[in-house]
Amino acid sequence: MDYAASISPNSSSIHEFGLLAKKKLEQARRDVAGVLSARSEEIIFTSGGTESNNLAIQGVVLASQMQKNFAALPASGRGHGQNFSASAPHIITTNIEHPSVLDTYKLLEKRKLAEISIVPVESNGLVDPKKIRKMLKKNTVLVSVMYVNNEIGTIQPIKAIAQEVRHYRKENTLNIFFHTDAVQAVNYLDLNVEKLGVDMLSLSGSKIEGAGRIGVLFKKNYVPFSNIFGGGDQEMGLRPGTENLPEILKFSSALIETQKIKDKEVKRLTKLRDYFFASLLKIFSRYDLPLRGGSLADKKFQEAALLINGDLENRLPNNINITLPRIPSDLLVIELSARGIMASSKSACKSSRAEGSYVIEALRPKSNPEIGGLRFSMGRNTKKSDIAYTIKSLTQILQKLKKWYD
Amino acid sequence: MDYAASISPNSSSIHEFGLLAKKKLEQARRDVAGVLSARSEEIIFTSGGTESNNLAIQGVVLASQMQKNFAALPASGRGHGQNFSASAPHIITTNIEHPSVLDTYKLLEKRKLAEISIVPVESNGLVDPKKIRKMLKKNTVLVSVMYVNNEIGTIQPIKAIAQEVRHYRKENTLNIFFHTDAVQAVNYLDLNVEKLGVDMLSLSGSKIEGAGRIGVLFKKNYVPFSNIFGGGDQEMGLRPGTENLPEILKFSSALIETQKIKDKEVKRLTKLRDYFFASLLKIFSRYDLPLRGGSLADKKFQEAALLINGDLENRLPNNINITLPRIPSDLLVIELSARGIMASSKSACKSSRAEGSYVIEALRPKSNPEIGGLRFSMGRNTKKSDIAYTIKSLTQILQKLKKWYD
Repeated sequence: MDYAASISPNSSSIHEFGLLAKKKLEQARRDVAGVLSARSEEIIFTSGGTESNNLAIQGVVLASQMQKNFAALPASGRGHGQNFSASAPHIITTNIEHPSVLDTYKLLEKRKLAEISIVPVESNGLVDPKKIRKMLKKNTVLVSVMYVNNEIGTIQPIKAIAQEVRHYRKENTLNIFFHTDAVQAVNYLDLNVEKLGVDMLSLSGSKIEGAGRIGVLFKKNYVPFSNIFGGGDQEMGLRPGTENLPEILKFSSALIETQKIKDKEVKRLTKLRDYFFASLLKIFSRYDLPLRGGSLADKKFQEAALLINGDLENRLPNNINITLPRIPSDLLVIELSARGIMASSKSACKSSRAEGSYVIEALRPKSNPEIGGLRFSMGRNTKKSDIAYTIKSLTQILQKLKKWYD
Repeated sequence: MDYAASISPNSSSIHEFGLLAKKKLEQARRDVAGVLSARSEEIIFTSGGTESNNLAIQGVVLASQMQKNFAALPASGRGHGQNFSASAPHIITTNIEHPSVLDTYKLLEKRKLAEISIVPVESNGLVDPKKIRKMLKKNTVLVSVMYVNNEIGTIQPIKAIAQEVRHYRKENTLNIFFHTDAVQAVNYLDLNVEKLGVDMLSLSGSKIEGAGRIGVLFKKNYVPFSNIFGGGDQEMGLRPGTENLPEILKFSSALIETQKIKDKEVKRLTKLRDYFFASLLKIFSRYDLPLRGGSLADKKFQEAALLINGDLENRLPNNINITLPRIPSDLLVIELSARGIMASSKSACKSSRAEGSYVIEALRPKSNPEIGGLRFSMGRNTKKSDIAYTIKSLTQILQKLKKWYD
């Protein structure tokens, strides 16, 4: 007799099925909080990673604008570009964040709601915390740096950045908060928000085996916050809309599972990844092509036949990202796909725009944007034989495309 | 080799699995468009009804503000309340919209982005199109009226309102658009957007048997629009975030199924509803309590023992909403739940706030807010025996609670 509430039980209903749904929802929230060493009420369920990142960034900017009474920006003016009032909320980020972070800044800039500073990463894909420290100023309200880059798998120095932010915050008694997009980190890295020192952290179910297609935003209670959506009082009043309980339950149990097998998977995949890299080096020597793997600072990289993108040490165990400087990555993806291997050229999240990878461009500003990077990302079902087959196929493809090298 | 893109195939990927996912996604989009008599590119998949309503309203307001170059509103000023510049985007709505619509207006007002006019419904829960017509003015950019109210099931005169909006638009060559929240209409009413004359329409999977937990926003191409989220280029660039393909596929096939069985279900449920109403009247006469069912304009309604909320003619076939003027609806929900019947008091989407139903209050402004309305909403699995059992249980509960009547 409650079909209009929702076909599946609605946790906001006060009848028995509603209460049961609420109980399950709150258990899932506790489970997720447990993995992050957070408190239940700091876990907000969203529709996905894109929404989590938007909620974190827009939430703080909109709230800061109202709370701190920032000077009015010209809402109707055109062509002002970066010409902001000094007292507009200021955000610091890097140039290799996910589109759901970078485009949100563009949106806020376009609406004249925030002033953005973008710190470029080094040629190995890592950001220097000292460079972030230098950008902090009186009207800074947010620093957002991704835990792991989605294309090149590099792991950013989150703890060190958090320390810089905390130190500046204390020194100047300012409300500056630190957000990290941990969507790509979830399976392999420490998610303890206390140890990381972050105020906000985004997760997405779409990167976890068996998880529901939802997102999570961890947010400390003290972070000032404004809703993006108007609506009901779900999620502590911060994210309206009937909770997607079936997917939330799948998410929480899948997240717990990732934690159980993490250490084992990290070891296993690190071995596979290093086998992959070693095999790549072998192919290229067999084909008698010069090698510059890992040495991205090398000015003669255009002459190299193989470039490994991103730092080799601070890198996810499941990520291999290479550039063959004269072969467009899209072509390699299609050739690999024809052999049953699904790889990726630049981020799929942005790929309908006909442009190169801004992440690869950030590492090597002068490279041909059509070339991009070729990403292999492994997972729970990836075996050594898969890598061997991939290497074999790649060898065949290179032989076929030999003309490109002539 | 593409785990980082998404655990399940990502329709933005260019490899074979990605292309297959894209094909399925676009077929689902065509299927949904077919049901609405719309074009594929007018269908935007979202995370749910709340997001669809927010996207429609915020999308038009934010775009209008940029396009029309509305005068700057004081972003930092406080306590201005309704004191808007005459050239701020103006929106017209009713006082019984879903929280995801009404709260979105509050959000926009708070941020000084729009001027809102709220047209009160009549005592039968229907809005008078003429009253909406009277509110239209030069800076109006949007009229938003729900197709069916979620609490009382009343069907608004959407076609008539659309005509008023279109007429004023032509007469004044203004960009005024009409949005309807059709979340509660989806199973039983005509969804042909051409016949309805709407420019935007929201749907939610959570109200469709077997559908995925996603939302849809239909939006005519000519409606100016601005994203809420920053991110990738999914959904024609209007709604970033990897599409939730598994749920989208469930949604489109479930939507098609609703259309196949609609006529039969409408007939079947209308009979059940009328049997429910007739039985209610019988209970109350047996218990010798005065009856004022349906006559909401009656000034002596406080004396009545049973009130039927909302128009009886223009009403969904699955909705029964009553008020027993001296018994709080929450108490009835709990008593019914103890007997295995899941009913609802006011909208579950708003129920964590300790306040009465604003919908019932809109019908009878002077009633006790604690009393509210008791909603029974039937669905595909509701049988006549369920109604008989509900009536029997309600009789027992009334007998138990007899003291309330003394």
